[in-house]
Amino acid sequence: METAPLKGMKDFLPSESIVREEILEKIKECFELFGFRPLQTPALERWEILSAKRAGGEEILKETYNFEDKGGRKVGLRYDLTVPLARVIANNPNLPLPFKRYQIQPVWRYGDVAKGRLREFLQCDIDIVGAESMIADAEVIACANFTLRALGFKDFSIRINNRKILSALVEFAGVKKEKVMEVLRTIDKLDKIGEEGVRKELKGRGVEEDCVEKIMEVIGICGKDVLEKVKEIVKEYEEGKKGVEELEELKKYLELMNVENYTFDMSLARGLDYYTGPIFEITAGNKIGSIAGGGRYDELIGIFSGRKIPATGISLGVERIIAVMRERGMIKERKSKTKVFVAGVGEEVLGEVIRIVKLLREEGINSEFDLRGRNLSKQLEYASKLDIPFVLIIGRKEIEKGVVKLRNMSSGEEREVEIKELIEDLKRSYSQSR
Amino acid sequence: METAPLKGMKDFLPSESIVREEILEKIKECFELFGFRPLQTPALERWEILSAKRAGGEEILKETYNFEDKGGRKVGLRYDLTVPLARVIANNPNLPLPFKRYQIQPVWRYGDVAKGRLREFLQCDIDIVGAESMIADAEVIACANFTLRALGFKDFSIRINNRKILSALVEFAGVKKEKVMEVLRTIDKLDKIGEEGVRKELKGRGVEEDCVEKIMEVIGICGKDVLEKVKEIVKEYEEGKKGVEELEELKKYLELMNVENYTFDMSLARGLDYYTGPIFEITAGNKIGSIAGGGRYDELIGIFSGRKIPATGISLGVERIIAVMRERGMIKERKSKTKVFVAGVGEEVLGEVIRIVKLLREEGINSEFDLRGRNLSKQLEYASKLDIPFVLIIGRKEIEKGVVKLRNMSSGEEREVEIKELIEDLKRSYSQSR
Repeated sequence: METAPLKGMKDFLPSESIVREEILEKIKECFELFGFRPLQTPALERWEILSAKRAGGEEILKETYNFEDKGGRKVGLRYDLTVPLARVIANNPNLPLPFKRYQIQPVWRYGDVAKGRLREFLQCDIDIVGAESMIADAEVIACANFTLRALGFKDFSIRINNRKILSALVEFAGVKKEKVMEVLRTIDKLDKIGEEGVRKELKGRGVEEDCVEKIMEVIGICGKDVLEKVKEIVKEYEEGKKGVEELEELKKYLELMNVENYTFDMSLARGLDYYTGPIFEITAGNKIGSIAGGGRYDELIGIFSGRKIPATGISLGVERIIAVMRERGMIKERKSKTKVFVAGVGEEVLGEVIRIVKLLREEGINSEFDLRGRNLSKQLEYASKLDIPFVLIIGRKEIEKGVVKLRNMSSGEEREVEIKELIEDLKRSYSQSR
Repeated sequence: METAPLKGMKDFLPSESIVREEILEKIKECFELFGFRPLQTPALERWEILSAKRAGGEEILKETYNFEDKGGRKVGLRYDLTVPLARVIANNPNLPLPFKRYQIQPVWRYGDVAKGRLREFLQCDIDIVGAESMIADAEVIACANFTLRALGFKDFSIRINNRKILSALVEFAGVKKEKVMEVLRTIDKLDKIGEEGVRKELKGRGVEEDCVEKIMEVIGICGKDVLEKVKEIVKEYEEGKKGVEELEELKKYLELMNVENYTFDMSLARGLDYYTGPIFEITAGNKIGSIAGGGRYDELIGIFSGRKIPATGISLGVERIIAVMRERGMIKERKSKTKVFVAGVGEEVLGEVIRIVKLLREEGINSEFDLRGRNLSKQLEYASKLDIPFVLIIGRKEIEKGVVKLRNMSSGEEREVEIKELIEDLKRSYSQSR
């Protein structure tokens, strides 16, 4: 029988799982420093929620797992955490606003495994619901910035654009309003398929040649004065002008918050339909792709709730973050969190082994003992395989003397200690190592 | 549009989510004290894994979400964490044994919502793979016992039985070997449908009247000397005798571990097919039903891996545990983990507000500020709604004097402090309150 996980899905064995848990703990801590509060929603959603107009959009629905449940309802596994958030806001009209929430849960997308994409992956999202001001966008960017630094990232950069500007630029290039979203979805693939790929796909979507070239030109605008250049181009477009104002305001707040590692990049599009204002993406090196992305979505919640509620947020791509951290040696692997293995010599000392293990655990010291009736050398081998730093050896001789033998597994050093003294020692070294 | 979660599924808003996270943290800590290591597996599994013979069994498959994925594979959402563990063990033949793992992830069962059952719920499992000795069963029971006490439970009891004994008893009552599992599934419903319900269902399954009565009689055996009584009854059944020996051994280890709050209960059956030895269930009061359950399953892993590997484990029903803790007032609700709200008076102080918030966050103090341009009283109202204990008030006057005003939200007391002094104060009270 095939026992590998399904294609595109992964089992996380302890050594990997321990690292993931530690990174997620750190991320949560940062989110809570910024006042975000946890939310959890079910894996399954009604299909009408996931497929609502201006929710995720057609590209993502192609990849969304869906089926009829046993009650005949059409349901799907969530493809992001933003649409469920919007639903929760609509369903809880009395939540105090702004609602600052974080959510760390898996999402599912039936993507192309050949390109290294997982079909089940964790998302770590922070969102601020009910704040219209660009200060909310600045706050989520600052929080992502702070979190990545706390994880040890140094050389990453934040790319910022605005859907209002982008729409205006694309319209300026000659695209009809109703085709804008389609064109943006293609521009979003720039990093993946390159300029030629985008040109080809745009033509395939029926965009005329000179229009395609004009699109490539406007999204290529760059430089320190990019906002001024863009302002000039979109001056006839109300939406575009509003977009420039938003980015100017955002810039002001980012400066107040000392966030400096960002650039305005007119080629950034983001693939999801629901964005309406600033959009952002964080990259940590050229070859890696984005490690975080998000933006403002002022219309999405209104679709579900009937009242317009502005919102903005960012999602950390934690799978990629962990992969990059591992590649760069930013992670210390640990096979186990057990501090002490209590080894007994002979079955007659089992009672004493159990007594000491119990004592250690009651003192908050992670401890194990042999469950397979193995001899001492096999017990030591097991402790060594699991990177357990200390082994206590208990034999009849030690019991008679009222001591235990403590072996430091990395130095090999052994010494006899009294139990009481031992516990004090271990507690001290424990609080240091954590 | 319907914005409630799907039937039988729940959104956990921050105040509930904060409590859940704290309880899960505590549970993880206990599991790690006992040397269990984390594992995570995908939500989706191949249908052939979930439906393997002697895995979960027919009762549970009726409730299992399943569908064809976009690649035409038949898949299902996992109904427990034990079958995925067995698959992982088979797929990783070189894991050092015993493999002590914990796993805290949701499972999905399309159960009867009318009976208050959730269709997505968390399981918290600990299992020991590769240890044949009853000391492993004692270890998982001791760990569950320790964990429940650490959560604050005092009056709970552990019921223990053995599938080998139960099979022998049922055969002794006249049931044919191939019908035993079917009968056990019915006995498992005793708590839910009562004695009369079990009698009726057994008859419905074609068990004859006198045989039904004999079954009811043998599973009713109780008292301090239950093992002796049972030993006498099953003396002709090799399997039953082995079962009694196992429980005698288990008893010895539980005594060594000072676990006392258990009884042997011949009416305990457990619903899943895969159990082969001791089975256990923990209840915390009459009306509540079980808050933990598990047992030994020495055959399950062999089904997937081809080599026989013994295993035992227990699953904490964390949804029920939390419900009971809430009912009994064992939980302190918190709407937010933010410590300080920094309120500004007028837009001209925004720069200073942001500077102070940044300072606090860098010192590890969870802080927020206004993102909606609200006046002071609205800002205070928001802080109060979220139970934020301290508000710092920053106005032009304070900035000129080089101080901030600190308001204790529970006492209403206000005083002027210098920023530096404030941070020391907050850090002190912070480490106390956590």
